[in-house]
Amino acid sequence: MKLEGKVVVAQGGGPTAVINQSLVGVVLESRKFPQVTKVYGAVNGVSGIINEDFLDLTQETTHNLEQVAITPSSALFSTRDKPDKAYCEEIFNVFKAHNVRYFFYIGGNDSADTVRIVNEQAESSGYEFRAIHIPKTIDNDLMINDHTPGYPSTARFVAQAFIGLNLDNRALPGVHIGVVMGRHAGFLTAAASIAQKYPDDGPHLIYLPERPFIMDHFLKDVKEVYDRYGRCIVAVSEGIQDEDGVPIVTKLVKTKKDAHGNVQLSGTGALGEILTQQIKQKLNIQRVRSDTLGYLQRSFMGCVSDVDQHEAREVGEKAAQFAIWHNIDGSITIHRTGYYSVDYQITELHKVAGKTKLMPDEFINAKGNNVTDAFKYYLQPLLGSHMPEASMLRAPRAPKILRVK
Amino acid sequence: MKLEGKVVVAQGGGPTAVINQSLVGVVLESRKFPQVTKVYGAVNGVSGIINEDFLDLTQETTHNLEQVAITPSSALFSTRDKPDKAYCEEIFNVFKAHNVRYFFYIGGNDSADTVRIVNEQAESSGYEFRAIHIPKTIDNDLMINDHTPGYPSTARFVAQAFIGLNLDNRALPGVHIGVVMGRHAGFLTAAASIAQKYPDDGPHLIYLPERPFIMDHFLKDVKEVYDRYGRCIVAVSEGIQDEDGVPIVTKLVKTKKDAHGNVQLSGTGALGEILTQQIKQKLNIQRVRSDTLGYLQRSFMGCVSDVDQHEAREVGEKAAQFAIWHNIDGSITIHRTGYYSVDYQITELHKVAGKTKLMPDEFINAKGNNVTDAFKYYLQPLLGSHMPEASMLRAPRAPKILRVK
Repeated sequence: MKLEGKVVVAQGGGPTAVINQSLVGVVLESRKFPQVTKVYGAVNGVSGIINEDFLDLTQETTHNLEQVAITPSSALFSTRDKPDKAYCEEIFNVFKAHNVRYFFYIGGNDSADTVRIVNEQAESSGYEFRAIHIPKTIDNDLMINDHTPGYPSTARFVAQAFIGLNLDNRALPGVHIGVVMGRHAGFLTAAASIAQKYPDDGPHLIYLPERPFIMDHFLKDVKEVYDRYGRCIVAVSEGIQDEDGVPIVTKLVKTKKDAHGNVQLSGTGALGEILTQQIKQKLNIQRVRSDTLGYLQRSFMGCVSDVDQHEAREVGEKAAQFAIWHNIDGSITIHRTGYYSVDYQITELHKVAGKTKLMPDEFINAKGNNVTDAFKYYLQPLLGSHMPEASMLRAPRAPKILRVK
Repeated sequence: MKLEGKVVVAQGGGPTAVINQSLVGVVLESRKFPQVTKVYGAVNGVSGIINEDFLDLTQETTHNLEQVAITPSSALFSTRDKPDKAYCEEIFNVFKAHNVRYFFYIGGNDSADTVRIVNEQAESSGYEFRAIHIPKTIDNDLMINDHTPGYPSTARFVAQAFIGLNLDNRALPGVHIGVVMGRHAGFLTAAASIAQKYPDDGPHLIYLPERPFIMDHFLKDVKEVYDRYGRCIVAVSEGIQDEDGVPIVTKLVKTKKDAHGNVQLSGTGALGEILTQQIKQKLNIQRVRSDTLGYLQRSFMGCVSDVDQHEAREVGEKAAQFAIWHNIDGSITIHRTGYYSVDYQITELHKVAGKTKLMPDEFINAKGNNVTDAFKYYLQPLLGSHMPEASMLRAPRAPKILRVK
């Protein structure tokens, strides 16, 4: 028997370049089913649900939906609310009042947990209801999934950024540090490795949260590279930690207030500054610079993997199909088959909710300061079509006349 | 009579996304002339000349040159050397020893000045010699030129970055500050204005070096926007100055050394941090973030204006043609004709050398905190084909049930 009622779709957590593809996948697919009376979009994630702040996406044009799909960031806006049980009860009450029978929440492992709790409440009160978590995270840290929508496009941004930083650094040598997002998982920082095309290409060193960061080892590594190439490019995760698991940035940044400027290192460029100063002072290298890739990584308009776009669309479509055709709850997961294709499955929510996947050991080199070829083999097909590549001049040196010995 | 001898081409100053287009334009065009015996590329700009460090680009393949052309940063590497008279004499001596008769230097106003001095030495010693400056700068600050190669692509990067920051900020509201390159001229920062598509789109405020930056006015501006939209996006030039011409960043950042972390604000993220702290403390707004676009602006791989690519190629070609067909020295300049096409002319070196063009008054609004439509009309055609655009959902709000008053 067909379950008649409304669909609610919402977006949670940090935006990605393709999160709207999943939204549009849900909306277009849901609108095909006669038992779906309306498709609502909750404004600002779960907080829009408890405030009954819904857009009626049944009345959105297909053209505009397609335009929104290629726009980064969350078109329904987002929230950092992490609902507890009481909050989820409010959500459930609104759903009952509006006869919402299908709930799709696009987000990371926290969002999966919200879906899990709401779904349990529906089950325990005997309300017929399907709830699906749709994966999204630039960090690529969801369990079960081979990778998660949002990661490939941000990885591409990081790769393109480091291709450029490497070229810039070759033209005007020195040490350059690029700080990449990722508090626990190093997948994004590791993507910088795609810039390693020619033998002397950076990043020469890559530091991930999965391995302890020891300042003395870091300085020794930088000195070795600098002595060899006269320059050094470093990719570093914002989340690097010492051997006790204390983030380097909280360990070394002093909070400092000042009557005039009120300078207070609050996170943004702090890690890059710390490492820069260490190199300048301990290694006596003059030209040391850092860039913190910041919010550009996840929101930049016009740097996207088409593979990521298609997969993000498909997980949205599959979510609607699993719920509405098959009456199943769960989390949509992506599974790699061959090199390269994917299958979509639906996985029990508790296997994804609230858990974090880290870089596997085989993706990290023995010294813990770079990635392996296995990682590049993993990442390459995710980056999509027309990935730009840098080229160098290969012309021979011309003979000297005045300075001949 | 045809002047027989070698060509030397070199690249100076900061890299751009299209500086290699100009290099390849010079090389491919020069190689067509029988009186050109060799085409040399000086490695590391003028310092490569005095060290006789040349690549023989006559022996480079056409395919690889075309690959290099679409690669950002300086393929011949760069230098920050600003030659004085003695240095230029050394350059001139090397040119005489190698029978170099044509010199092309791709760079900004400092590079134009180097070309000017070398050329004067050749003239005063009766050495038959052509020297041409080829314009390049992301800052767009060369006199005579409507705009300069390198600027359109970086402007496009800045625009795409702010489109994303605006979307991100709409999804997760607060105040967001983006710091853009430009010590004296505000053209790059002004490019952020392209993100203003929908009526509430940011950047809501744009601060340029051409207008004094007064902290109290800035805070008042931010408060007004934040009260109106619940969020605020600010684009600010790294070079903003107070009423006495003192850069805000040097005025407000305290150099601070510390035994452990050695944190010392040296420039990179400092201005963003200062403004962030001011807003947090004076306006009591919680979520305030900043991004410093940094080196990504000028070197990012894969964000380029095709108009910029073509023009950068053409100024290189025209330089070779003016020198080798027409025996003229000077600086190649770009002149806009209609909307939108350009002509290339050759201008006397002293009109470009060592001078800086600023944003004209008609491009800046009366309050000095945004740009005018005249600026957008100026910039739009430079951004090139397939400029991405953001789209919003326009679906109607759905009726409430539980919260009906």
